[in-house]
Amino acid sequence: MKAGVIGLGAMGAGMAANLTKQGLLAAVWNRTYDKAVDFAGQHGVAAAADAPTVAAQCDVIVTCVSADADVLEVVDAMLPELGEGKVVVDTSTVSADTAREAAERVAATGAQFLDAPVSGGKEGAEKATMVMMVGGDEATLERVRPVLSAISRSATYMGPSGAGQVTKAVNQIMVAGINQGVTEALAFGQAQGLDMDKVIEVLSGGAAGSWFLQHRGPTMVRGVYEPGFKMALHRKDLEICRAMLENMGVALPVVEMTLKQYRPLIEGGHGDDDISGLYRSKRAMFENGGNKKSL
Amino acid sequence: MKAGVIGLGAMGAGMAANLTKQGLLAAVWNRTYDKAVDFAGQHGVAAAADAPTVAAQCDVIVTCVSADADVLEVVDAMLPELGEGKVVVDTSTVSADTAREAAERVAATGAQFLDAPVSGGKEGAEKATMVMMVGGDEATLERVRPVLSAISRSATYMGPSGAGQVTKAVNQIMVAGINQGVTEALAFGQAQGLDMDKVIEVLSGGAAGSWFLQHRGPTMVRGVYEPGFKMALHRKDLEICRAMLENMGVALPVVEMTLKQYRPLIEGGHGDDDISGLYRSKRAMFENGGNKKSL
Repeated sequence: MKAGVIGLGAMGAGMAANLTKQGLLAAVWNRTYDKAVDFAGQHGVAAAADAPTVAAQCDVIVTCVSADADVLEVVDAMLPELGEGKVVVDTSTVSADTAREAAERVAATGAQFLDAPVSGGKEGAEKATMVMMVGGDEATLERVRPVLSAISRSATYMGPSGAGQVTKAVNQIMVAGINQGVTEALAFGQAQGLDMDKVIEVLSGGAAGSWFLQHRGPTMVRGVYEPGFKMALHRKDLEICRAMLENMGVALPVVEMTLKQYRPLIEGGHGDDDISGLYRSKRAMFENGGNKKSL
Repeated sequence: MKAGVIGLGAMGAGMAANLTKQGLLAAVWNRTYDKAVDFAGQHGVAAAADAPTVAAQCDVIVTCVSADADVLEVVDAMLPELGEGKVVVDTSTVSADTAREAAERVAATGAQFLDAPVSGGKEGAEKATMVMMVGGDEATLERVRPVLSAISRSATYMGPSGAGQVTKAVNQIMVAGINQGVTEALAFGQAQGLDMDKVIEVLSGGAAGSWFLQHRGPTMVRGVYEPGFKMALHRKDLEICRAMLENMGVALPVVEMTLKQYRPLIEGGHGDDDISGLYRSKRAMFENGGNKKSL
């Protein structure tokens, strides 16, 4: 089984490197072409001239791009080279509608499309510890499992096309609420003068425990917000959620509140911070006698 | 070391039973006196005639009552019988100011007061798996540790008087945010038709993972909201947080939003639901074409 990777950002490059280790990688391509050449040189694979060439040379094409339009653009470019037996696995985070649209276009060639967004960040991509949520045809998922296993800790079938992206949206909304709760609560504790390492330790063992408290709590209370998961990317994902919600006629409080609070932080130059950088604005509420009057 | 328990609600009765098992319990008292007589009959200890009698007969008096005024009332009643060597351990959740006030009054007799709120619910009280956050004098905590170890999994020293209550407040704010995130995200996923058991399983293993998702997710998506932790009690605790925040001139978004959303649920008769009953209102947003127009 020959795999190709399109999109060699932090995530895509990690996945491609892991495919190389398993002897599965046949070709890579990246819009900023130098990146593809660099990667190819380092890992001894071919830098394809364009996306259709990757599609022509590989059985499984893993895409990892930024936005909804990019997914459709790459898919459209590959269509002439796709056909029965080929599978496009899109690991980008985009809307479920985009995933369904891409799946239809690919299916028209006889090939298959899986929406397979991931959770676990750059570190997860590098160490192949990501969790993958897959929508599309279940038999197709099983067929390409060797490729998915090379790049992730688990790949779970979630349902028909789009179900992977919906699951990712659930994940991103949940993370927003947890970020809200953890940053707000710890900022209060710090303003009250508690020993925050003790607080984090005690709370981690109980009903308030979370991955985020354990992994981001100790750094945020020290004003360290190294990603992790960049705030600007979480905003992008929450905007995708908001678009999906718009179609349902729903505005969700946690989503709206988090987008509202991220905005000044990102505009203030903190978009590359980890999402725990929300701690900055929670802390600020306790300064200069509080925010009570301005509410 | 002789221990007494004042307040035999679900939590206090569990703690008293565990003290009996360790041979530490000498007396109990409860405002609704029948409860004390029942407990005493079942566990072979003395039902004291009043709170001062417990104080007179015991070295360590564990109190577990409902509200700030109750703590001060019980403490005031005991003052004539308190003195050097005696320790009052208050496991109630009240404001840090109340804890500091009670500590001062007790200290005037030569006795000691520890604020020692707990996390872990009725089940934790029964199984002695609660986490205890302790404010006051550290040497006193060490002296009464045999009693605390009999009723909790861990008792951590957090700082001077009030620090235990502040830590508990941090816990309750954090739980509010997590409840917001988990209920809102799962309601979205369910409205989108996902297999929710799969969603909970996949998300639990990643950066969105939390105790609450794992323990309350599977029940809330089935419309089951058995406590656990009653919404009416969480509201009471968040109102204590709000009073503490008021003194700092701060209104916290997660606290305000959660109180606002709990209100109609509690008024609608769901105050005895687990806090995951917030799922009701998140679900409702997706019904009848969404809430978008009313925002």
